[in-house]
Amino acid sequence: MTSESKTAHANDTHSKDRIPTSSDGITRKPFPGSRKIYVPGVIHPDVRVPMREIALSPTQAGGRTGGGAETANEPCVVYDCSGPFTDPDIAIDVRKGLAPMRDAWIRARGDVEETEGASSDYAQERAKDTTLDAIRFPVTRKPLRAKAGTRVTQLHYARRGEITPEMEFIAIRENQRREQMGADLAKQHPGDPLGASMPEQITAEFVRDEVARGRAIIPCNINHPESEPMIIGRNFLVKINANIGNSAVTSSIEAEVEKMVWSTHWGADNVMDLSTGPNIHETREWIMRNSPVPIGTVPIYQALEKVGGRPEDLTWELYRDTLIEQAEQGVDYFTIHAGVLLRFVPWTAERTTGIVSRGGSIMAKWCLAHHKENFLYTHWDDICDIMAAYDVSFSIGDGLRPGSIADANDRAQFGELKVQGELTKRAWAKDVQVMNEGPGHVPMHMIKDNMDKQLEWCGEAPFYTLGPLTTDIAPGYDHITSAIGAAMIGWYGTAMLCYVTPKEHLGLPNRDDVREGVITYKIAAHAADLAKGHPGAQYRDNALSKARFEFRWEDQFNLALDPEKAKSFHDETLPAEGAKVAHFCSMCGPKFCSMEITQQIRDFAKQKGLDTEEAVTAGLTSKSEEFTEAGGEIYS
Amino acid sequence: MTSESKTAHANDTHSKDRIPTSSDGITRKPFPGSRKIYVPGVIHPDVRVPMREIALSPTQAGGRTGGGAETANEPCVVYDCSGPFTDPDIAIDVRKGLAPMRDAWIRARGDVEETEGASSDYAQERAKDTTLDAIRFPVTRKPLRAKAGTRVTQLHYARRGEITPEMEFIAIRENQRREQMGADLAKQHPGDPLGASMPEQITAEFVRDEVARGRAIIPCNINHPESEPMIIGRNFLVKINANIGNSAVTSSIEAEVEKMVWSTHWGADNVMDLSTGPNIHETREWIMRNSPVPIGTVPIYQALEKVGGRPEDLTWELYRDTLIEQAEQGVDYFTIHAGVLLRFVPWTAERTTGIVSRGGSIMAKWCLAHHKENFLYTHWDDICDIMAAYDVSFSIGDGLRPGSIADANDRAQFGELKVQGELTKRAWAKDVQVMNEGPGHVPMHMIKDNMDKQLEWCGEAPFYTLGPLTTDIAPGYDHITSAIGAAMIGWYGTAMLCYVTPKEHLGLPNRDDVREGVITYKIAAHAADLAKGHPGAQYRDNALSKARFEFRWEDQFNLALDPEKAKSFHDETLPAEGAKVAHFCSMCGPKFCSMEITQQIRDFAKQKGLDTEEAVTAGLTSKSEEFTEAGGEIYS
Repeated sequence: MTSESKTAHANDTHSKDRIPTSSDGITRKPFPGSRKIYVPGVIHPDVRVPMREIALSPTQAGGRTGGGAETANEPCVVYDCSGPFTDPDIAIDVRKGLAPMRDAWIRARGDVEETEGASSDYAQERAKDTTLDAIRFPVTRKPLRAKAGTRVTQLHYARRGEITPEMEFIAIRENQRREQMGADLAKQHPGDPLGASMPEQITAEFVRDEVARGRAIIPCNINHPESEPMIIGRNFLVKINANIGNSAVTSSIEAEVEKMVWSTHWGADNVMDLSTGPNIHETREWIMRNSPVPIGTVPIYQALEKVGGRPEDLTWELYRDTLIEQAEQGVDYFTIHAGVLLRFVPWTAERTTGIVSRGGSIMAKWCLAHHKENFLYTHWDDICDIMAAYDVSFSIGDGLRPGSIADANDRAQFGELKVQGELTKRAWAKDVQVMNEGPGHVPMHMIKDNMDKQLEWCGEAPFYTLGPLTTDIAPGYDHITSAIGAAMIGWYGTAMLCYVTPKEHLGLPNRDDVREGVITYKIAAHAADLAKGHPGAQYRDNALSKARFEFRWEDQFNLALDPEKAKSFHDETLPAEGAKVAHFCSMCGPKFCSMEITQQIRDFAKQKGLDTEEAVTAGLTSKSEEFTEAGGEIYS
Repeated sequence: MTSESKTAHANDTHSKDRIPTSSDGITRKPFPGSRKIYVPGVIHPDVRVPMREIALSPTQAGGRTGGGAETANEPCVVYDCSGPFTDPDIAIDVRKGLAPMRDAWIRARGDVEETEGASSDYAQERAKDTTLDAIRFPVTRKPLRAKAGTRVTQLHYARRGEITPEMEFIAIRENQRREQMGADLAKQHPGDPLGASMPEQITAEFVRDEVARGRAIIPCNINHPESEPMIIGRNFLVKINANIGNSAVTSSIEAEVEKMVWSTHWGADNVMDLSTGPNIHETREWIMRNSPVPIGTVPIYQALEKVGGRPEDLTWELYRDTLIEQAEQGVDYFTIHAGVLLRFVPWTAERTTGIVSRGGSIMAKWCLAHHKENFLYTHWDDICDIMAAYDVSFSIGDGLRPGSIADANDRAQFGELKVQGELTKRAWAKDVQVMNEGPGHVPMHMIKDNMDKQLEWCGEAPFYTLGPLTTDIAPGYDHITSAIGAAMIGWYGTAMLCYVTPKEHLGLPNRDDVREGVITYKIAAHAADLAKGHPGAQYRDNALSKARFEFRWEDQFNLALDPEKAKSFHDETLPAEGAKVAHFCSMCGPKFCSMEITQQIRDFAKQKGLDTEEAVTAGLTSKSEEFTEAGGEIYS
């Protein structure tokens, strides 16, 4: 999903083209109370899966009265997108890039070869241009590509029954130590509304099988060995994407790298670089070499820059060269608006908001200007061959997605979706991994229809949606209007959610907006994981709620999606350190706390050795005086 | 819904007990581009319904190229909760209070009488206490109550077939000038998922009928004549509630009045005063006399203050006196936790988070301490008689609502809900209006069950929910975790949503938090209105999206739920005045705008006189050159 209307982040301080001279500006703060752990593989012992372990303080027996024995709380281990940047033991030098973790796995498969250098004409030109030396990423390497006649995609391997290191990595990563989740889980495990099955445990074989069926993708270009493998599919944790990118008016290379790190720090599983400004090629190289998450792009944006912004001047040859240029840099998935067909374009003229996708409008204009069918559609098989040679995944764009409630689920939108399905199957025939992009602006009651049609028409390929926004009337709050739709469509089966920031429709997101957008989408994704019965999802909720109930304030903060904000909000009204261990909070004060009263009820029940039925049937009358005695002074 | 965990707002600047010495600190700013209009009644010509009319600028023919004829856009008329404060023609003096608009209607019914003065012992004591003179609301009046043997509730009038001025006021208010909504509406009008019918037009008779059936309530105490009538029911616009109130550590009277005005300014349909601090009685009087929206309270809070915070010391007599005290001040609805029965209490000991409702925990403690059944339950009929004498509506509390995902939909929660249903029917037997409070923390897939059970067990009485929060793991963002659940349950049929602010679980909301909470809940309510097919809902979305598409920036801001924030976000990246009329925005820049390209497609289609099918079948080949010619230079 491109969320093409908000590509760049506002950047107030950096001048253009400034490149990182050190790694000082990069977010490296580990999360409070947390450490990075690495879980080893079994099938592939060189697999080491980074996860975040949150240490928890012990429970005090006797609740607030304390003084009793302490019971340890197991640390909580959670999925971690933040890469090496949050591991203080790893030295980071953005001028060298991250360690190419997957390089050995890729080469060991024996199906790739090094090129002499960049194969694209454009990349070769840029390489020769000495005026760009000052902004070029310092380390050059030779791109890999598939040996002639081979396909190097995870789909290809999965279909031939091979469990790759990437697949095992993902299996471990998705499990989130679910054996610790406790007994409540069964209760919370509904049938999947779509009839798909959430397994009790994610095995590497399950990963392979889902990839082989096309129900999940592993975006991992062979030229992006720095990435930590992740999976996008509806039988896994719902993922989120954050957009970065410079534009004609904003941002430096240094700022772009930091935006990527910042986004993943807060939880972005993927990042799309939607740059439209100057030096897109060089900027992308810096991002790729430092990104622990898959990077997606919309190649038509760069292609359009190459023809001076005139859609009419786009050609297949230029576009093809751009695909190769970007594939050899390591881009993991491409948004391609091949479903915007000539016959759909006039339908958009009747809409309230026409075409709101930038890629869609570019292709629509090209189609009309030439009166030819979309060249992305007519060259689909050629594009598939390129994708298969680098394992770039498709993110088939929804160029005609609705930009308003009034336009939701109309014939232009669904016409394109059907074509997306056709293109999906053609890509699968060439072993290329595929996901499909979806809306947009859709009111709640019309959301499920989108999911149902996508599953049916696109053969269960992963769906990747922007929101959807459930109303048009709240510019400034569209992270929220869209989080409502995102959570719902995630529950219904969407595999990845493209974030929306508070600046949507209005301007460029700054750092705070990115954080707000990412956290909001982590909420939507997690709410969806709970609702669809992901076996590992409720583990963290239970840990946090237990901490909350027991007034373990620091644990509550540390288990939160945004520990800093949770703590700072608490500090606003009760800043003293003592309040962090207090058995009350500022909302009700010490005398008026429902959590406190509940603890008394619980203590009373336990103390009397009552189970719940007994407490009722035995009659508590004789015990009420004791309770008054015991409980009365608690309030004094 | 009490949202009992966040009663007070943080207040940094006011000293305690400070009362308003002028009205200078009160929010009076009208909305930009808007004016207050008054729509007159037909049945009751003295009914004048205030609405907000948003003026719109004309559409420029020819889109961005402009220069063509202008087409006027009808102003957009929207529901308005902000009362006289946003009418610059009305003088406001908070020391005198608002005009008692409903006073004549109430007295004209001939079923009320003035008391000699406050009937409650406590209120009489306070009245005699000269040390309170300094903080007392300056104007005293004699409370009204029903004449002996009569019931003065809207339910009573509705059942006997009477359309009151309040009902006609509401019918006009709910319609939102739907004749202007346009043709898209039919498309967006699904069947109500609950099988109830959303009428094409809200008539006064429909209002009466819904009230008579108990499916909707009009909270309007005869002692709150200042309130502008509003309705809570699932066949009307979804409403929201904001909480205010002082606590032991915060806030002055002046601040409380301003909080009420501030909340309604941003869109709160109701306000609950959850004060637990000093001078609750006097503070409430100031709020009541200045509130244009219904005010709810949780009387047990004040009752508990009267016994020094010891639940065990609560008595029916004290509570009864508190009900009368508050009813004579004009409180429009009471949250009463009469469904927390002794037999449910032990069940909560097994929970992850026990009892999280303050009212619930107070009653649970009382039950255990005395080993008697909840006195609110045993005195229900007595309470109903009081409510009927003042037309105070019930908001039957959910004292055992789940405080974590793990506790959702458990037997304690649903045990109480069944009792709420029993109490609802007993109240109806005495002509008392009723709504029921609901959860809490509930994952998405378990939300609908709450709604379905409430409708079934509580005879379709309006449901009033807190969120529900769809995950526990995002303290600092619980306005969002809960807006997801709120929008969904609103769609399913919940009539009113209690807001949650970003400070939930952490501390006291400040002004910004209140605004954020209110706007977030307006979004949830509006998304629900769209989804359930409220005939007037999409009108505003369409107007805003049309403005957005036509680059009428100021119109887009003015139509937004929060015009100030929308405009300020836009100004951050494009502050110049010229940008407000620019045909692009900072997101893509002038050369790369999808809205712009769409306009070209639309212009082209129109210019050629093509309808959409024609455009395809006639073949555009011959026209492509013309388009290139016409469109090419647009980008130069």
